Amino acid sequence: MQECSRKERLEGKRIGVVPTMGYLHDGHLSLIDRVRELADFVVVTIFVNPTQFGPFEDLDKYPRDFERDCEQCMAHGVNVIFAPSAGDMYHPGHSTWVTEEALTTDLCGSRRPNHFRGVTTVVTKLFNAVLPDVAVFGQKDAQQALVIRRMVRDLNFPIEIVVAPLVREADGLAMSSRNRYLSPDERRRALAISRILLGLTPGKVNPDLIWDGITKAGGRVDYVEVRDADTLGEVTRDTREILVAVAAYFGPTRLIDNVVLPHVH
Amino acid sequence: MQECSRKERLEGKRIGVVPTMGYLHDGHLSLIDRVRELADFVVVTIFVNPTQFGPFEDLDKYPRDFERDCEQCMAHGVNVIFAPSAGDMYHPGHSTWVTEEALTTDLCGSRRPNHFRGVTTVVTKLFNAVLPDVAVFGQKDAQQALVIRRMVRDLNFPIEIVVAPLVREADGLAMSSRNRYLSPDERRRALAISRILLGLTPGKVNPDLIWDGITKAGGRVDYVEVRDADTLGEVTRDTREILVAVAAYFGPTRLIDNVVLPHVH
Repeated sequence: MQECSRKERLEGKRIGVVPTMGYLHDGHLSLIDRVRELADFVVVTIFVNPTQFGPFEDLDKYPRDFERDCEQCMAHGVNVIFAPSAGDMYHPGHSTWVTEEALTTDLCGSRRPNHFRGVTTVVTKLFNAVLPDVAVFGQKDAQQALVIRRMVRDLNFPIEIVVAPLVREADGLAMSSRNRYLSPDERRRALAISRILLGLTPGKVNPDLIWDGITKAGGRVDYVEVRDADTLGEVTRDTREILVAVAAYFGPTRLIDNVVLPHVH
Repeated sequence: MQECSRKERLEGKRIGVVPTMGYLHDGHLSLIDRVRELADFVVVTIFVNPTQFGPFEDLDKYPRDFERDCEQCMAHGVNVIFAPSAGDMYHPGHSTWVTEEALTTDLCGSRRPNHFRGVTTVVTKLFNAVLPDVAVFGQKDAQQALVIRRMVRDLNFPIEIVVAPLVREADGLAMSSRNRYLSPDERRRALAISRILLGLTPGKVNPDLIWDGITKAGGRVDYVEVRDADTLGEVTRDTREILVAVAAYFGPTRLIDNVVLPHVH
């Protein structure tokens, strides 16, 4: 992969990457379409990264369909799919980790120990393997996007980070490979999340009401957080936009969603 | 720095780097001479990295002589000196760290908390700033060289790591920018370290005798360790070479030194 990227760069090409865990949906495809506008040579990485899953999470059942992923990548003008095995990526004696310590202490960070350590480490590895000029991440994982931006700044990666909008199903549900875990009943109830988030009025966001609405729909709320969308810190007078981020279980399936709203003082 | 390296690479040049903290001595210059054999474009970084010093260590008094360093680099064919300020390197909200967890738990790692976290983080940053093809480190810091090799393997940096031999003063003292801290009397006594290490016979290495010899010379031993030179682990039947590594104080100055010997079964 490094040789391939270096060869393309020597020919003057700008290299773009979309890191994914595969089982591509229209959200991923929107990231691929975006990076194709920003780069001459498009790489998609497909790797279900074991180090970002907790011991009781869904690593083993995480959905995979490599054939279909390849077809979709080809249809969207991807030049290379980089799909290493876990053994390719992690040497048995792997002992080096990249950690971000300020933005990962709460929201998904406090609920999923080591999750972001796995993300920052594998993204570092994928960046060093693909050597891109630009990388596109989805706003669906809002905290992850901020963590990656911070990592790139702090470690001086020569890579532009672009965050592309969250993509929703026709009925509002945020697209996720994990949506396939939902039963028809759970899926219907889970629409409460997007219905509530998309119905929010700037200046009138009440986390308790969001929590109650999701609970009434049969969800088990993990968190509802209202934060500064740029820093993930508390909302202050300087806050430009607010991030309203939700994680909730419907049945055994944990879903996340968010909206960004102007901060009305 | 990134633009400069990318321009040189587009012209087909192979880029080499020697990361230093400046106050260059013949040890550093041997690394520069080595990298000049391996690369077409030679970068020396000079940065006294605050994050690898402990709160009671010698960050403030660490010797500096930028003018002299520049002259020496020019005399040794260096193409670029990359000498960022601490403010250039560390944003006030810096929160991302690279840690190696297997090779840093003892020797200098246990004596200097956070030292290797500072080293791996700054070397990652310098690698991402300089974007080299090859980097040369000194065997003087034997544990550091192993940690950097491991980091490069684990994080997939597209960089060849070369470890160049330790360079000694005419009387045997391992070259170090910190040797200037020694009083004439301390410096004379400190020769015990190299005299003992260079007098070792393969198959007959007794750490207690090394400890005693340094103590008798007036040193305060921090550690004497005999390890597998490739893994830094215990010496086993598979050990090819042993590393005999010493850290000892003479007055307030902490010195390190080491020799590598064949493992005689």
